[in-house]
Amino acid sequence: MAPAGRPGAKKGILERLESGEVVIGDGSFLITLEKRGYVKAGLWTPEAVIEHPDAVRQLHMEFLRAGSNVMQTFTFSASEDNMESKWEDVNAAACDLAREVAGKGDALVAGGICQTSIYKYHKDEARIKKLFRLQLEVFAQKNVDFLIAEYFEHVEEAVWAVETLIASGKPVAATMCIGPEGDLHGVPPGECAVRLVKAGASIVGVNCHFDPTISLQTVKLMKEGLEAARLKAHLMSQPLAYHTPDCNKQGFIDLPEFPFGLEPRVATRWDIQKYAREAYNLGVRYIGGCCGFEPYHIRAIAEELAPERGFLPLASEKHGSWGSGLDMHTKPWVRARARKEYWENLRIASGRPYNPSMSKPDGWGVTKGTAELMQQKEATTEQQLKELFEKQKFKSQ
Amino acid sequence: MAPAGRPGAKKGILERLESGEVVIGDGSFLITLEKRGYVKAGLWTPEAVIEHPDAVRQLHMEFLRAGSNVMQTFTFSASEDNMESKWEDVNAAACDLAREVAGKGDALVAGGICQTSIYKYHKDEARIKKLFRLQLEVFAQKNVDFLIAEYFEHVEEAVWAVETLIASGKPVAATMCIGPEGDLHGVPPGECAVRLVKAGASIVGVNCHFDPTISLQTVKLMKEGLEAARLKAHLMSQPLAYHTPDCNKQGFIDLPEFPFGLEPRVATRWDIQKYAREAYNLGVRYIGGCCGFEPYHIRAIAEELAPERGFLPLASEKHGSWGSGLDMHTKPWVRARARKEYWENLRIASGRPYNPSMSKPDGWGVTKGTAELMQQKEATTEQQLKELFEKQKFKSQ
Amino acid sequence: MAPAGRPGAKKGILERLESGEVVIGDGSFLITLEKRGYVKAGLWTPEAVIEHPDAVRQLHMEFLRAGSNVMQTFTFSASEDNMESKWEDVNAAACDLAREVAGKGDALVAGGICQTSIYKYHKDEARIKKLFRLQLEVFAQKNVDFLIAEYFEHVEEAVWAVETLIASGKPVAATMCIGPEGDLHGVPPGECAVRLVKAGASIVGVNCHFDPTISLQTVKLMKEGLEAARLKAHLMSQPLAYHTPDCNKQGFIDLPEFPFGLEPRVATRWDIQKYAREAYNLGVRYIGGCCGFEPYHIRAIAEELAPERGFLPLASEKHGSWGSGLDMHTKPWVRARARKEYWENLRIASGRPYNPSMSKPDGWGVTKGTAELMQQKEATTEQQLKELFEKQKFKSQ
Amino acid sequence: MAPAGRPGAKKGILERLESGEVVIGDGSFLITLEKRGYVKAGLWTPEAVIEHPDAVRQLHMEFLRAGSNVMQTFTFSASEDNMESKWEDVNAAACDLAREVAGKGDALVAGGICQTSIYKYHKDEARIKKLFRLQLEVFAQKNVDFLIAEYFEHVEEAVWAVETLIASGKPVAATMCIGPEGDLHGVPPGECAVRLVKAGASIVGVNCHFDPTISLQTVKLMKEGLEAARLKAHLMSQPLAYHTPDCNKQGFIDLPEFPFGLEPRVATRWDIQKYAREAYNLGVRYIGGCCGFEPYHIRAIAEELAPERGFLPLASEKHGSWGSGLDMHTKPWVRARARKEYWENLRIASGRPYNPSMSKPDGWGVTKGTAELMQQKEATTEQQLKELFEKQKFKSQ
Repeated sequence: MAPAGRPGAKKGILERLESGEVVIGDGSFLITLEKRGYVKAGLWTPEAVIEHPDAVRQLHMEFLRAGSNVMQTFTFSASEDNMESKWEDVNAAACDLAREVAGKGDALVAGGICQTSIYKYHKDEARIKKLFRLQLEVFAQKNVDFLIAEYFEHVEEAVWAVETLIASGKPVAATMCIGPEGDLHGVPPGECAVRLVKAGASIVGVNCHFDPTISLQTVKLMKEGLEAARLKAHLMSQPLAYHTPDCNKQGFIDLPEFPFGLEPRVATRWDIQKYAREAYNLGVRYIGGCCGFEPYHIRAIAEELAPERGFLPLASEKHGSWGSGLDMHTKPWVRARARKEYWENLRIASGRPYNPSMSKPDGWGVTKGTAELMQQKEATTEQQLKELFEKQKFKSQ
Repeated sequence: MAPAGRPGAKKGILERLESGEVVIGDGSFLITLEKRGYVKAGLWTPEAVIEHPDAVRQLHMEFLRAGSNVMQTFTFSASEDNMESKWEDVNAAACDLAREVAGKGDALVAGGICQTSIYKYHKDEARIKKLFRLQLEVFAQKNVDFLIAEYFEHVEEAVWAVETLIASGKPVAATMCIGPEGDLHGVPPGECAVRLVKAGASIVGVNCHFDPTISLQTVKLMKEGLEAARLKAHLMSQPLAYHTPDCNKQGFIDLPEFPFGLEPRVATRWDIQKYAREAYNLGVRYIGGCCGFEPYHIRAIAEELAPERGFLPLASEKHGSWGSGLDMHTKPWVRARARKEYWENLRIASGRPYNPSMSKPDGWGVTKGTAELMQQKEATTEQQLKELFEKQKFKSQ
Repeated sequence: MAPAGRPGAKKGILERLESGEVVIGDGSFLITLEKRGYVKAGLWTPEAVIEHPDAVRQLHMEFLRAGSNVMQTFTFSASEDNMESKWEDVNAAACDLAREVAGKGDALVAGGICQTSIYKYHKDEARIKKLFRLQLEVFAQKNVDFLIAEYFEHVEEAVWAVETLIASGKPVAATMCIGPEGDLHGVPPGECAVRLVKAGASIVGVNCHFDPTISLQTVKLMKEGLEAARLKAHLMSQPLAYHTPDCNKQGFIDLPEFPFGLEPRVATRWDIQKYAREAYNLGVRYIGGCCGFEPYHIRAIAEELAPERGFLPLASEKHGSWGSGLDMHTKPWVRARARKEYWENLRIASGRPYNPSMSKPDGWGVTKGTAELMQQKEATTEQQLKELFEKQKFKSQ
Repeated sequence: MAPAGRPGAKKGILERLESGEVVIGDGSFLITLEKRGYVKAGLWTPEAVIEHPDAVRQLHMEFLRAGSNVMQTFTFSASEDNMESKWEDVNAAACDLAREVAGKGDALVAGGICQTSIYKYHKDEARIKKLFRLQLEVFAQKNVDFLIAEYFEHVEEAVWAVETLIASGKPVAATMCIGPEGDLHGVPPGECAVRLVKAGASIVGVNCHFDPTISLQTVKLMKEGLEAARLKAHLMSQPLAYHTPDCNKQGFIDLPEFPFGLEPRVATRWDIQKYAREAYNLGVRYIGGCCGFEPYHIRAIAEELAPERGFLPLASEKHGSWGSGLDMHTKPWVRARARKEYWENLRIASGRPYNPSMSKPDGWGVTKGTAELMQQKEATTEQQLKELFEKQKFKSQ
């Protein structure tokens, strides 16, 4: 099976999914570009598309080579509330970069929006929809192939996004950053999926906040909810590439290691091959990743599903399946690692014997030290902090 | 302290070190580009410089922005014995890429060679020196600023490299991939340093194979060896960005996780700040990294030593010192992480509760399962394998 | 607060509990005496009461000194189905030993029965009740103070036990070895409690199989079930002294470490003080332990609740509260450990860097190696094993 | 191989060792009786022999049943400097208890002394030897079979002990609580052994402070030291039953878990079988244990060496070799644990995912928190504390 691109004219996203094809998403932009020096943690805004387009183009290229069929515009948080006047140029430049790279292979361009910074303070539907519409206008002008509404913690806001995006006539995918416990208002995953499909989404699922295992549990609940409601939609998953068995309902943001100490949690390529297979078995056909997914993780999806897809990604020219390239090594015990059983069964060590394997999430159950510090700092709102400490009395460890 | 490049004409490497300046090296090329899809594990050869020059240029750019003062030509293993006829084009293209990026900031170009694949079979001084000389001729033609002989497991071969390189009249740095136990023939680090300096190296130290802590222990032994011999040289360290307390004498190659399961060992930026400070305190002035060092790790060196150097690297425009960017976060407990004490004291979890923290290295004490497999495969030489099993009887766990 | 026994005539178990008094149970006999050389793992039968009465008497004495108010007859599994003709002498001797030691302090004697070995094969109510009745006759003859039906995995059999025991007119306590998921037929804890109280139990709760944290979660569910049904009963908890966050529904038996590798899971005295406080706060007033509870663990309950009870146990003459005895140590850093904060916050290490922190339970999801071995051995029943492998296909990791 | 005592008259300790017989020592008294409620941590003095003789007798009995050939008098720290006027009665009672139990099997009585509390303040040879002589007089009166000088941190004091004890004409064994780095004055193990043998000891080795692996490394150095000096002596090892890979030179006292959080470090019976075999292979013939060794650990030594000794200990009537008793279990996956390979290869979990696997020892490199606390407390001497903080500056983590 030689690495190969796909010949012929490009099929649309729904055409692909409806024919049973696997669509491979792309991976991490914010966190990957933070490590390369082009995105600032905390703000997490994508001005790099205008400041350092070469860096963004290069990352798109890497995902394309790794097998991605979707170049998602790097427009996360690029709405007016976060970027002020810069927002329009950023959205336009992001579209151009995505289109340029998509043109070099079998990939579509998806315009992406995410939850706003204002929903949690003011559930102002008109204002929020307007923010979404502004981005959509750029996407329409740039003629993206389809749209993604992603990273929503509340289904209500996600529904607003979908309602706004379908006005374009383009297919809409919607993913929430939730776990099996549901959205932050307590709406369970199955119910979230039903609402999103009813609002017009053709593709639903989850992205970010949780590891592949937990994310697929959530997608399974979505699938069951849709079946119970006799609704049809394509399933999509774009989880973290971090192991997060110790998260609470709010995901990896509340882990004490976020965002500068996540290294020991990073998934291996073998973890991701397992994820790709499990996603496929569950019926998910839009399979990608979110924070932490480097190009080699996306390649792992493409390699695991090469038998189903019939071809390997370009970047496999530099990768032997299951470590097979190691059989060139001069040491016999390194050559002995060139096999599937080895990597599947290895329980890799952290080299950190003074560290634990699990953390307790911050948040409602914050530790005493953090709580004291929070008192000295400005809280989001007086009321919030008050509630926080109230709850802490009962939930702190 | 605003991010800033350095004005004025470039000083040479020795001029910088002799004036007490800190020179920041670059980071990982092979392993970083493997993850980006451009280098093949096992071979680890740098044909990417001709096949995908954009990808290599981009990585050089990231290190430059992160604070590197040295653009090392991506010519690791690019000698005739590993790359056949391609070697010459590769070395030339690598020089051009390094020079192009170095020209955009305060960085020098270093031509790099490493141990040959033949030394372990035939200690043929003439043939090996010829291989080094071939690469040197390209470097001379391209007029690199200085030369680095790196990744030597045997001081004898490293001395041959230095002897070859000094013929060019350019400054020579020499680093070995050894730990405190010395080279693979048992020559202790202090003695290695003495021989390298006597052969003509102006800068000596270690690179690769071990984590920062162990590597600095080795450099310390080199320093003491030089002092005892009343020799002068500048010290250099370019360790792994992996935690490897469980390595044996042969370094991380023998860890069962090499090379596809090293993720949980990756150092945080805070680990690297600690390393930079300790290297500086030890008197090391050429401070960089090897496998696993991403641009943000190099930036961590530049940030830690900004008080001494008087400026921050360009990439710090996208980084708040000690997580200070987090004080923009909406959640108070995430804002509470925007401080040095938090990150310095956090013992980060792996999220892998079924895995251990330490591994037992393969090698002479290989596990039974691996040994059986090795028997079914082709060993390097009959004799080697025979000796291996002989030794195993006594040393297997 | 000086160590002290309690003056005056002994109050009955219900009298104590109804007056709000804390009753401290005893600890581990089977596992403790296995380590001392008097009980055989696998059989776990208590012939030691006749073969080595000194050893059993000594353990009773240690629990009495540690603060136990109950000397439970060492008659676990001492029914006719497990011990054949020996059963009668064993039950009688166990009563005499318990009474002898109880007479030396403020403790009552409780006759104890547990689930039979036949329920899982034949749900023969008449035969099982007869087994219970036989033991009860000995207890009646020896005039124990009250009765305990413990270690039931199925509430149906536990109800049969309670129905049999209440015929004696003595108070009956009933505990099940279940977790929050309920009994092995899926009856939830709240429902189990309701049925036991309706059958006549005055005291209900859990024992064995799970650690203190999980056990108290189960007791909480029982409490809520009783409240919902407007039933009253005293609550009792006798958990393991092992950390078992990784158990499945069937408890620690299915952990791969059971029973000869449980050492790293043993609770400290500080863990048990925390448990005692949480049990008390939940409203549990009969607080003891099961497998793994050594005398010092029982003493920890008595010390934690000394403020409520008004006195310390005898064995506290040899124990400084929260490590206070350490302030005699010659090393200042050991003296610095003589304080509550130190021990409460210390995260103790295992000294086993090659081992994980969690295990995957055997059972329906058994590992491949175990499954192969099981095939070579005699399964309980053909049918059982068949079902086992059927289920494995879907649930194995 | 049936469990059996040994017929016939008792051979002396040297007679046994000279004939190549394995002598099994006993285990932990102080720490075991602390957990049973009869010894106070901090003081660690053995008044239990007069206050609670039944408890001490019972523990002796358990070790005898487990296979011990030595009943060591429970006289640790029972010298006048620690116990004032009580010391004489304690030594006498301890001898009587040891003799009583030894009479019930094939065991000898050993009178035991240890380092004094005054050596570290005043190296007053006359006064210290007098303390030893006082205890020796009781041992002589009670006619113990041989003498053990144990738990010495300084070889100088150990030599004084040996010099005192040999005056009795009885065989003398001498063990130091040191690791491979040697005694606290820096005398290496080989040199310690040489001095002890020259002073008159017939048996030398180590006890306490380190785990079996480290202790055997130390004994190996002693053996090599004796061979180099062409001296002959029998070797003895009585290590901790705790895993202590993270100790510094001063042993487990400096671990932050000492003494109330050592639980997760406790060795399994399988760990101890491995130790017994390795000790035997090294040539050690007096094999026992120190702190943490419960009766089942001693039984593990006796079972491992049953092929060499020709018989099993009495307590093996309650123990199936390598878990064989488990083949009676009702669950097939528990039955599958009834085999050597299972227990030898199992890497047991701690059930503590929030805890690390290794600790950093207190001591010269104490943590900041402990150091602050020490300042508020009384240090041993002004001078000591001053030195302590001086050193800390350089060695703290």
